[in-house]
Amino acid sequence: MNFATFDDLRAQFHDLPSGDDKAAAAVASRQDTLTKPQGSLGRLETLVAWLARWQGEAMPRLDKVQVIVFAGSHGVTAQGVSAFPSEVTAQMVANFAGGGAAINQLARQAGADLAVVAMDVERPTADFTQRPAMDEAEFLAAVARGYDAVDDGLDLLCLGEMGIGNTTAAAAIAAALFGGGGSRWVGRGTGVDDAGLIRKATVIDAALALHADTLIDPLRIAATVGGRELAAMLGAALAARKKRIPLMLDGFVTAAAVAPMAKLHPNGLAHAISGHVSGEAGHRHLLQELDLSPVLDLGMRLGEGSGGCLAISILRGALACHTGMASFAEAGVSDK
Amino acid sequence: MNFATFDDLRAQFHDLPSGDDKAAAAVASRQDTLTKPQGSLGRLETLVAWLARWQGEAMPRLDKVQVIVFAGSHGVTAQGVSAFPSEVTAQMVANFAGGGAAINQLARQAGADLAVVAMDVERPTADFTQRPAMDEAEFLAAVARGYDAVDDGLDLLCLGEMGIGNTTAAAAIAAALFGGGGSRWVGRGTGVDDAGLIRKATVIDAALALHADTLIDPLRIAATVGGRELAAMLGAALAARKKRIPLMLDGFVTAAAVAPMAKLHPNGLAHAISGHVSGEAGHRHLLQELDLSPVLDLGMRLGEGSGGCLAISILRGALACHTGMASFAEAGVSDK
Repeated sequence: MNFATFDDLRAQFHDLPSGDDKAAAAVASRQDTLTKPQGSLGRLETLVAWLARWQGEAMPRLDKVQVIVFAGSHGVTAQGVSAFPSEVTAQMVANFAGGGAAINQLARQAGADLAVVAMDVERPTADFTQRPAMDEAEFLAAVARGYDAVDDGLDLLCLGEMGIGNTTAAAAIAAALFGGGGSRWVGRGTGVDDAGLIRKATVIDAALALHADTLIDPLRIAATVGGRELAAMLGAALAARKKRIPLMLDGFVTAAAVAPMAKLHPNGLAHAISGHVSGEAGHRHLLQELDLSPVLDLGMRLGEGSGGCLAISILRGALACHTGMASFAEAGVSDK
Repeated sequence: MNFATFDDLRAQFHDLPSGDDKAAAAVASRQDTLTKPQGSLGRLETLVAWLARWQGEAMPRLDKVQVIVFAGSHGVTAQGVSAFPSEVTAQMVANFAGGGAAINQLARQAGADLAVVAMDVERPTADFTQRPAMDEAEFLAAVARGYDAVDDGLDLLCLGEMGIGNTTAAAAIAAALFGGGGSRWVGRGTGVDDAGLIRKATVIDAALALHADTLIDPLRIAATVGGRELAAMLGAALAARKKRIPLMLDGFVTAAAVAPMAKLHPNGLAHAISGHVSGEAGHRHLLQELDLSPVLDLGMRLGEGSGGCLAISILRGALACHTGMASFAEAGVSDK
C-alpha cells in the first residue's frame, strides 16, 4: 500500500465497508435455539455475532488468527517519561524473537500466529516537545507498513505494541483528540513514580501548546505526537476493516493508535473490540470515548497485545458454544 | 467418605489444611524477575500464586483439571419459581451425556475433563416451603457423594451445577446465612418475569419463617433450604481443601452451595476463586460477602460451570507466562 499525502490517506478512511447484518442476525437466531435460557451466555453471544458480522459468515471461524506486535522508539524519552531506558525497546524485540516475552506465551496459548514488526527501532522519532515526531512522508510510510503487515484471509487480527515512551505518545494523541489536557490521560506506564507522572503530563501539555496549529486533524495529530508503531497500528486497523477482518485491541496504546479512525468515520471502529481494560489510568476514559466495552478487566498493564490475546480464549469459548451446542429440538429438551 | 451426623461433618470443616505460603512467595519472587514491568500482568500474577499456594508447588501445573457438574431436582419448583419445567433437569443431564450442552464445549476448550453426577434427579427434594428439603441422613449422603466425586491428584477442580429451581434454593441459603430476606438474593434464574421474581422472594421468606428454629447453623441451612446438588458441591469443596486442590467456582448457585464453608471456618474458602460474576442478581452481593473477586464479568447466567471453565483459559494464560517467560538476565533486557 502507498499513501501519497494526508489527504490521500484520509480518503481511505472515508470509504469503509459495512459489516454483514444478516450474518450477525443469523447468529442471534441460532443462539436462541441452543440448549440454554435465551441470552444466558451473555457477552459470549454478542461476541460471536460480532465475529459473524465482520467475517460475513453466520458460522464464523477462528482458524487463522494473527497477533502483530509493532515496536518503535520515541525521541520523547529524552524528557524522562519512562521508568525504563529506551534501549529496552530493541532488547524486547530480541526477546520476542527468542520467545521469552509474555506475548510469546500468550499467543501460543491463544492459538495465534505472532508477527513482530520492528519500526526502525534504532532510529527514534523526533522528540515531540521540540518538533513533530514524524513528518508527513515518514508517518504515511509507517501507516503503509502497518497496512501491509496484515495477512489476507485472517479470521481475527490482534494488535500489540512495544515502545519505551509510547504511553506518553498515546496520552498525547488522546489529549489532542478528546481534550482534558495531559493529566487526564497519563498513567504510570512501565512504572514511573509520582514525579514521573507529573513530568509526563507537563511534557504532553507543552507539546499540545507547541503544535496547537497542526493538532486540528486526526491524522496530523497521529503524525505530530504519535510514534511509528502507533501509526503502523492505525494502518493495520484500516487494512483489517478493508479486508473485513475482526480487530482485537489490547491496551491504552493500541486504543490511542486507532482512535483517529473513530474521528475520521462515524463507525470507524465498528469492526474492533477491546480485549481488556488495562491498569493504565487513561485507558478506561479512552474506551468510554470510543464506546468500546472491554472483554476483560484484570489489572494488566503490559501491552504487547497481552490483554487482547487473553481475550481470544474467551472468543474461542464463545465460538465453541455457538458451533458445538445442540438445539432444544436436537437434544429433546423442553423449551421455556 | 461417610459423615454420620451434622456434628461429625462440622468437625471436618473445623480442621482444614492451610496453603503453602512459601510456594506462593516463590511465585511472586520469580514474577519480579521476568521480562515485564513488575506487577504488570496484574491479576495473572496473583492467580499463579494462588495455584502455587494450594498445589504446594512453586511451579504449579494445570495438567489434570476436572469439571464436575452436579445435577439435582427441587420440590420447590411446585411453587412456580422457574421459567422452565422441572423435567428439564433430567433432559439436560442427557444433553451433557450427549455432548450438546455449553459445558461440553467449554470444558473441551479449557482442556478439562468433564464429569456429570446426577443426584437422584428422578426424585426431587421436598418442597422446602412445606418441610425441610432433606433430612440429616439424606443431606450427609449428598455431601459425601460430592466429596467422593473429586479425583485425587487434580491440579484444579471446577464446580458446576444443573437443577431447575436451584437459584431459589441458592437464594434461600444466602438469605439464611447473610440476611436481607428473599428480595436481596433472588434473580431471574432461567428467565422468570417480574411476577416470578416476586414469587421467588415470597417463597424464600415463607421458608425462612417456617424453618426459623433450624436455620441457626450453616449445615442445617444447607439441608433445610438447599438441594442435593448444592450439598454435593459443599462436599466437593471440602474434599478439594483436604486434598489441597485449588477450587474454581462458577456462578450464584456454586457460590451459595459452598458459602457454609466460609461460615464454618474463618478462611474456609481460601482455596477457592470465583471464575466470574454472573448476571444473576444475587451473585455480586454473595461474592462480596465471601470476599471473592471474580475473574470474569461477562453477563453470563447459565450455570453448568460455564463461567468457571472460561476462567480456566485465563489461568492457562497466566501459567504460560509464569513458566515460559525469560528473566531480564536470561534475555539481556535492562532492568528499571
